[in-house]
Amino acid sequence: MEIDGHTKLVGLIAHPAGHSKSPAMHNAAFDLDDINARFLAFDVDPDQLPAAVNALRAFKMLGASVSMPFKQAIIPLLDHLDKTAELVGAVNTVVNHDGELTGYTTDGIGFVEALKDDGVHLTGQTMTLAGVGGAGTPIAIQAALSGLTTLNVFNINDPSVANAKKIVQIINDQTDCHATFYPLEDRDQFKQKLSESDVYTDATGLGMGKLVDQTLVDDPSWFHADMTVFDTVYAPSVTKLMGVANQAHVAHVINGQGMLLNQGAAAFKLWTGQPMPLKDMTL
Amino acid sequence: MEIDGHTKLVGLIAHPAGHSKSPAMHNAAFDLDDINARFLAFDVDPDQLPAAVNALRAFKMLGASVSMPFKQAIIPLLDHLDKTAELVGAVNTVVNHDGELTGYTTDGIGFVEALKDDGVHLTGQTMTLAGVGGAGTPIAIQAALSGLTTLNVFNINDPSVANAKKIVQIINDQTDCHATFYPLEDRDQFKQKLSESDVYTDATGLGMGKLVDQTLVDDPSWFHADMTVFDTVYAPSVTKLMGVANQAHVAHVINGQGMLLNQGAAAFKLWTGQPMPLKDMTL
Repeated sequence: MEIDGHTKLVGLIAHPAGHSKSPAMHNAAFDLDDINARFLAFDVDPDQLPAAVNALRAFKMLGASVSMPFKQAIIPLLDHLDKTAELVGAVNTVVNHDGELTGYTTDGIGFVEALKDDGVHLTGQTMTLAGVGGAGTPIAIQAALSGLTTLNVFNINDPSVANAKKIVQIINDQTDCHATFYPLEDRDQFKQKLSESDVYTDATGLGMGKLVDQTLVDDPSWFHADMTVFDTVYAPSVTKLMGVANQAHVAHVINGQGMLLNQGAAAFKLWTGQPMPLKDMTL
Repeated sequence: MEIDGHTKLVGLIAHPAGHSKSPAMHNAAFDLDDINARFLAFDVDPDQLPAAVNALRAFKMLGASVSMPFKQAIIPLLDHLDKTAELVGAVNTVVNHDGELTGYTTDGIGFVEALKDDGVHLTGQTMTLAGVGGAGTPIAIQAALSGLTTLNVFNINDPSVANAKKIVQIINDQTDCHATFYPLEDRDQFKQKLSESDVYTDATGLGMGKLVDQTLVDDPSWFHADMTVFDTVYAPSVTKLMGVANQAHVAHVINGQGMLLNQGAAAFKLWTGQPMPLKDMTL
């Protein structure tokens, strides 16, 4: 569909933004769904964030994706906050209803949906999660809201540990899931909890970029075959951790690509009311 | 060129905006020139104009087109004003240089270039202009800046007459052109000045929409064959006025289409530094 005078805009608000694959994903979906809209990425300087949020109203945009470093900073600039986004304390999606802006987080939904796409359901399960930062936090909250029974949270003793402990508290206070914090430095405990888990999720970012050769688990015997190992990294598509899981013949070894697509699909549905035609998309 | 993370945005700021043909024109030109940018139209509520202007900075947009009702209102919100825009007292184009916004008007350039495309040059010429509103004002100023010797300005005695008289004063004060105001109700004077003119320009808007059957000149003898008759109307493509001019075998009878294209081309050049590939465009 050609751009005309009625074409609606959705923007990525991030800094930097030029590397984003979101324009390709969402514009392909707009095309396939015959939706008269375009998605552009905006590299917004931090002091311009309030102006960027006001632009959503002024330009009557459908909404926005929000990425680093604005996922927390944008919250006080919005009119409403979805319950899950409130628990997570971060927003990755903004929807504009007639000038009223609501913040959502779809990262956790992306995780849960990616597991479902692989036939893995969290209801009644035990999960161990390493790393409770930008990816791990929504994963923990959404897993707890999706029927998980037990969540073992491991985090290193760096500044992020306060958030990890806070998220454990929130889950125990506000969901039916039982969460426990453990220091990631306690390798025996970590090994023990992995052996008790149905799902292990690594949200540390180890295994990508400069950390490509790193993994928290290098001994296949720490895994068992009837579990799921999920790595939030998607490049490389098979991380060192996933290689170890494959050696252990783990049933479901999943990278972050499906989470990325599904968080985008959940945002797309919020903006347009229509499902993203994932099956017809090649990325 | 597909939209990616580096695609730049240009917006129309207007109210309403949905009817605009500018997205089709500028996006076709971006494509032909291999410029990684998109033009979208934004229907901006009047109380949102400051937020829309700030959006140019926040989203690092190349710039904007400005149309009714914002051509005057936007001026105090900009950082700089081009000399011609200052004389006209209106802006139809904004350029963003690293967050500094400059207002231009290209409507008058569009008029002068449209005449040139038809082989008509204003240097040393005498022009009669009827109507000094949104179209007539930049036409008068730009014609005076483009070498016109004598400008006869006719306007009816309605609220716009004050602007007509002010523009005559500005031209006499700030350009080498000699301008004179006449009341359009003085039909004898109007007929006399037409007979002395090389160019007659009708910027009244008569001849379009509900006024399609109206013309200020219905007697071909008021025109002469070696003159130019320019009507700012472009739909219909031949107005009643132009029909009368054709009956008089006027050498150059021109509608507003070329002015529209050329004002867009001048804006395009300001945003991109590249000429709009008009010859390759079909609109």
